[in-house]
Amino acid sequence: MSRLDQALLSNVCKPGGPLCADRAIPAKVTLVGAGPGDADLLTVKAVRAMAQAELVLYDHLVSEQVLALLPKHAELIYVGKKCGQHALSQEDIIGLMLRLAQSGRAVLRLKGGDPYIFGRGGEEVQALAAAGVPFETIPGISAAQAAGAYAGIPLTHREHACSVVFATGHLKGVEGARSVDLDWEMLARPRQTLVIYMGLGALDIICEQLIAHGMSPDMPAALIEKASLPEQRCVAGSLRSLPTLALVYAVKAPALIMIGTVVSLRDDLAQTALKPTAQHTKV
Amino acid sequence: MSRLDQALLSNVCKPGGPLCADRAIPAKVTLVGAGPGDADLLTVKAVRAMAQAELVLYDHLVSEQVLALLPKHAELIYVGKKCGQHALSQEDIIGLMLRLAQSGRAVLRLKGGDPYIFGRGGEEVQALAAAGVPFETIPGISAAQAAGAYAGIPLTHREHACSVVFATGHLKGVEGARSVDLDWEMLARPRQTLVIYMGLGALDIICEQLIAHGMSPDMPAALIEKASLPEQRCVAGSLRSLPTLALVYAVKAPALIMIGTVVSLRDDLAQTALKPTAQHTKV
Repeated sequence: MSRLDQALLSNVCKPGGPLCADRAIPAKVTLVGAGPGDADLLTVKAVRAMAQAELVLYDHLVSEQVLALLPKHAELIYVGKKCGQHALSQEDIIGLMLRLAQSGRAVLRLKGGDPYIFGRGGEEVQALAAAGVPFETIPGISAAQAAGAYAGIPLTHREHACSVVFATGHLKGVEGARSVDLDWEMLARPRQTLVIYMGLGALDIICEQLIAHGMSPDMPAALIEKASLPEQRCVAGSLRSLPTLALVYAVKAPALIMIGTVVSLRDDLAQTALKPTAQHTKV
Repeated sequence: MSRLDQALLSNVCKPGGPLCADRAIPAKVTLVGAGPGDADLLTVKAVRAMAQAELVLYDHLVSEQVLALLPKHAELIYVGKKCGQHALSQEDIIGLMLRLAQSGRAVLRLKGGDPYIFGRGGEEVQALAAAGVPFETIPGISAAQAAGAYAGIPLTHREHACSVVFATGHLKGVEGARSVDLDWEMLARPRQTLVIYMGLGALDIICEQLIAHGMSPDMPAALIEKASLPEQRCVAGSLRSLPTLALVYAVKAPALIMIGTVVSLRDDLAQTALKPTAQHTKV
């Protein structure tokens, strides 16, 4: 157990302490997909689980709108991992969750998007299963789906893309030796839509590598910032222009990168679509 | 306009008829993702739109559970395309939807899963946009997400898959010359999860082709039938064994094919996961 985990547990899990009951049977952990931000995109099942929550471990990308739906009396523990500012390591999160459940406290584990799409939910439930802690996973709308619907970009379309790929664009290394560990050859294939999560910091590398692996520099590409929230912005251009546009419009994380000819449909779809809250940057 | 479309419209859209008002301003069309089947996986936004619906065009894969949530007074029109039994062609569906909206009737277009993931929602909103009909798209939980959560198969996992691909496995041609139009080289790449929608009829070809393009015959693979519904079944094996298992267990559409090493996690995850309703076939 890490020192941080110990410190946390000494506060929340001491006998008679505020967070733990004294039981031998482990309580259930419910992994809930909190969706992309708009609380109306929560599933009915997620809302119901949240209404009964007494102890919540939540991530960085869970929106204020969603947190506001938790019961007033619920105890909230922030375990977010914002770029460079980790409240807890993944190992610590798992350790804390396990010990809380094993001490008899039911845990609601609230994760942005869908717990099984880049949410590391798989690792968390593996640890729960190994320890014999019962769990349930409630899927959530993933950011790509919200970005598509709210920005007017269908993820698949018979005339454009017969498949869609979700990948992550985590940056490795430091200035001068930055890299992204992706299968460029596969991503550069035609007739698919690429959605790259957490790729904003590596946008220049992603666009360069896709062009180097044969994708047209004119391939339509867009950045969708804060998909589904009132402050959503969509900046669209091409593989060649997108890195510059990201700087010009000062796009900030969380932002999705969408690449493929479906992005060109946005010109027609975003104008007619009724989106009372979302703002669009026409480039 | 096709003959079928004309016939339908002569019934539902005659002046003073039951379905159409006499207005020049087009009413709004709301494309709603009905999710995979379990009505609790609808989004709050979808439930709200459904509660206000007066006229609903719905697809084959919208579950009874979901339809039961529509208001009693709502008029329901089935426009489903079940394999070989199309109530209406896609062209007819679009024509009907346009004419209803243009005559002033607000339309709820209810589609299985997510309208922008293999739902042909993109084509429908393109037609609406071209005709100046206002629309809104509400994303839905896609079958892959529900299958992952309910069957214990995370779609991504740091040690297994850094990307996930959604593709369709529509069969082309007839007995003796059957084929599936997929980018096998791309799909056979390592460290990704493949989810193939509507691929049950082509399962043998899909498994053969992936092996022919370099994937191990021992690669874990599963079929998930009726994901998220009480009668959900998961049949797991390998690329080599899955076509036989599909016959032995008489798997029927709708069924998803999931391929990748994440499928092997199911052995541990499906046992501990609390799934009061779903049944699993352990192979």
